[in-house]
Amino acid sequence: MTQPLRVALAGLGTVGGGVVKLLDANAKLIERRAGRPIEVVAVSARDRSRDRGVDLSRFEWVDDAGSLGHRDDVDVVVELIGGADGPALTLARSTLASGKAFVTANKAMIAHHGLELAEAAEVKGAALKFEAAVAGGIPVIKGLREGASANEIGRVYGILNGTCNYILTTMESAGTDFADVLADAQALGYAEADPSFDIDGVDAAHKLSILASLAFGTTLDFGNVAISGIRHVIAADIAEAAALGFRVRLVGLAEATSNGLFQRVHACLVPVSHPLAHVSGSLNAVVAEGNFVGRLFFEGRGAGEGPTASAVVADLIDVARGEYGPALAMPVASLARLAPSVAGERRGRAYLRFTVADRPGVLAEITAAMRDAGVSIESLIQRGASADGGVILVMVTHEGPEKAVTHALEKLEGSLSLIGAPQLMHILDL
Amino acid sequence: MTQPLRVALAGLGTVGGGVVKLLDANAKLIERRAGRPIEVVAVSARDRSRDRGVDLSRFEWVDDAGSLGHRDDVDVVVELIGGADGPALTLARSTLASGKAFVTANKAMIAHHGLELAEAAEVKGAALKFEAAVAGGIPVIKGLREGASANEIGRVYGILNGTCNYILTTMESAGTDFADVLADAQALGYAEADPSFDIDGVDAAHKLSILASLAFGTTLDFGNVAISGIRHVIAADIAEAAALGFRVRLVGLAEATSNGLFQRVHACLVPVSHPLAHVSGSLNAVVAEGNFVGRLFFEGRGAGEGPTASAVVADLIDVARGEYGPALAMPVASLARLAPSVAGERRGRAYLRFTVADRPGVLAEITAAMRDAGVSIESLIQRGASADGGVILVMVTHEGPEKAVTHALEKLEGSLSLIGAPQLMHILDL
Repeated sequence: MTQPLRVALAGLGTVGGGVVKLLDANAKLIERRAGRPIEVVAVSARDRSRDRGVDLSRFEWVDDAGSLGHRDDVDVVVELIGGADGPALTLARSTLASGKAFVTANKAMIAHHGLELAEAAEVKGAALKFEAAVAGGIPVIKGLREGASANEIGRVYGILNGTCNYILTTMESAGTDFADVLADAQALGYAEADPSFDIDGVDAAHKLSILASLAFGTTLDFGNVAISGIRHVIAADIAEAAALGFRVRLVGLAEATSNGLFQRVHACLVPVSHPLAHVSGSLNAVVAEGNFVGRLFFEGRGAGEGPTASAVVADLIDVARGEYGPALAMPVASLARLAPSVAGERRGRAYLRFTVADRPGVLAEITAAMRDAGVSIESLIQRGASADGGVILVMVTHEGPEKAVTHALEKLEGSLSLIGAPQLMHILDL
Repeated sequence: MTQPLRVALAGLGTVGGGVVKLLDANAKLIERRAGRPIEVVAVSARDRSRDRGVDLSRFEWVDDAGSLGHRDDVDVVVELIGGADGPALTLARSTLASGKAFVTANKAMIAHHGLELAEAAEVKGAALKFEAAVAGGIPVIKGLREGASANEIGRVYGILNGTCNYILTTMESAGTDFADVLADAQALGYAEADPSFDIDGVDAAHKLSILASLAFGTTLDFGNVAISGIRHVIAADIAEAAALGFRVRLVGLAEATSNGLFQRVHACLVPVSHPLAHVSGSLNAVVAEGNFVGRLFFEGRGAGEGPTASAVVADLIDVARGEYGPALAMPVASLARLAPSVAGERRGRAYLRFTVADRPGVLAEITAAMRDAGVSIESLIQRGASADGGVILVMVTHEGPEKAVTHALEKLEGSLSLIGAPQLMHILDL
């Protein structure tokens, strides 16, 4: 099998350029590992003239990316265009319909259309691979699909967005507030000009829905991920969490429960003894809990040119080796359709932060609301006055139904004791 | 493909029993993931009467394990007998010669005979898989062979022996000495009655040589792993290391350098900022550093019934799916034969502990020996008297050639200032 694997590359942004650089730099090693050379034969991108730091003149430039999937001289199409729909989806459909392999880093497309594409690949016996779509260079798709395949997985969760983790851990080390760190991150190019996709949790939710499908053998259900981001996290939250033995992380968490499939992206308090508490900067990490293997922890770089290219080319090597099978770890017909599990059914501990008016009776009002809703308080901290004149009151509840906490907060809605809305973060328990 | 994958199981100790339990407990899920049922058809073990906590009466019992590889009703043999040679090796050879798949957890056999077996598998196009041989349930063989396959790996290293890590981290938390913790570990069943294989580093070295082959695309070279264990680590080492910002871990480290292949198992000082410093108890962890992906970190349970069975069955699922290729990630003919790199060529920092007589001039003598050998001292701690009447003197060197430190210690050999031999631990640098 010394026929080269012939690759068409659609999209030549940071990752596309990285794939070309990687295939150049490690060509000999890749040929030994793949059993044959991996060669780019055609590329397609909007802007031909842009300098990508790599010689692209040797490849055939194709204007219509959509045509790449039909070419006789192409074995596999790599899609790095992005976007859940549009040209990326058109290309995925036409490539798989031609029975060719399709490799992508497109988490939004897999989250929204993964089931359809997995089925299309299955019909033709074609490879559909997307290691780069979740946690960049960390081989966590493979870790779940193959490494942990013998296990019933109870929970899968992790830090799935490097921008958020960079912001939270910088707030932690510098003691600064969200807006300042975000502005710095944008200036440094670590955050997008429009950062909402990252900081509001949507990107992490795309990835979580993919992990959940692989972990639990269920259909993808991005629509039922409960999503919130990190805009509401203030420096005081991080400081008080630290005082209580926690660090704040944006955690995507999925559980298969008797009530169905629970999926949530949420800023959480993580105990310092948990490995996720030590994931800093823009790193990503994923934990899977299996009924025989116990807790598996994967950490690495979740984005950027090199790590993402590493995952894309690993997929190409699998394709070159012929080592691939059903994209979602089992035939689509075997995937279970679990009803979404409502958060209220869950039990856990919660962190609550209130900004309150500095006058008598406030503490009594809040603690009474907690008592009436059946929420038991484990610890409570009240310290000095905040910038807006109020006093910050922070508490951690004992384990109990999440809906009890929601209920208590509803009771307090409109209370004149509160300045602004209370903030709730769940606690990730071991 | 609904034909079951028919398994013969040789060896029914803890892991063998675990494999049967796992195949029972997760049967439906495994069938969905593997695309077909995985069924044990025959078993072989020394003692038929032993209660293994699982019903074995439904399987055919075979006295001669060696015959399993020839049976027409068997697709794959799982070897859990152990031992580098003897019946395990005989079974491996006969199974692969029959063109059947062979799955093993036997690190000693792969370390010693992996090349021969990989070649035998290649000739017949048979699967040879050994995920359970390294780091138990952590899919690190797959992580290197496939997940990081696009990368040139510079270093691969990790905590590869749970018994040693349990002892070291218990010494750390309890402040006790090696012998006491070992005795407790033996009483609790965490350490073998004869623990030398674990605590002298041989087990970790077997695993390291396998990781090195996969990481660097080199032939297995267990014979050139420099091996030492943890018997010499005393409570004071751990306390002084902590004072200097380090934790003590038994680290297996392999590097592909311009001088050749460097492989060493050694008690090391790990900076607290490094993820290996947070690996506690009997957990294992592996780090691979790739030229595109950066640092990948894998952590999980490295031994025991459940985690090891998880890895064995993951291999069976790969075999059932037909997703396998060359055992050592590339054809044996493509593996490079690197000369062993001698430790003296390396540069690094070192930790040295001297027990010295409490009299004038001792410090001058030791520091002069360091100066004469060209070793520069970064920090030095001398505290009180030790149990044997001497004074403990601890130092950390600046980065420099390892051979300079060796040279300095040679100069001090036979010095009347020293009580007992000095102890050296290398520092794992980021």
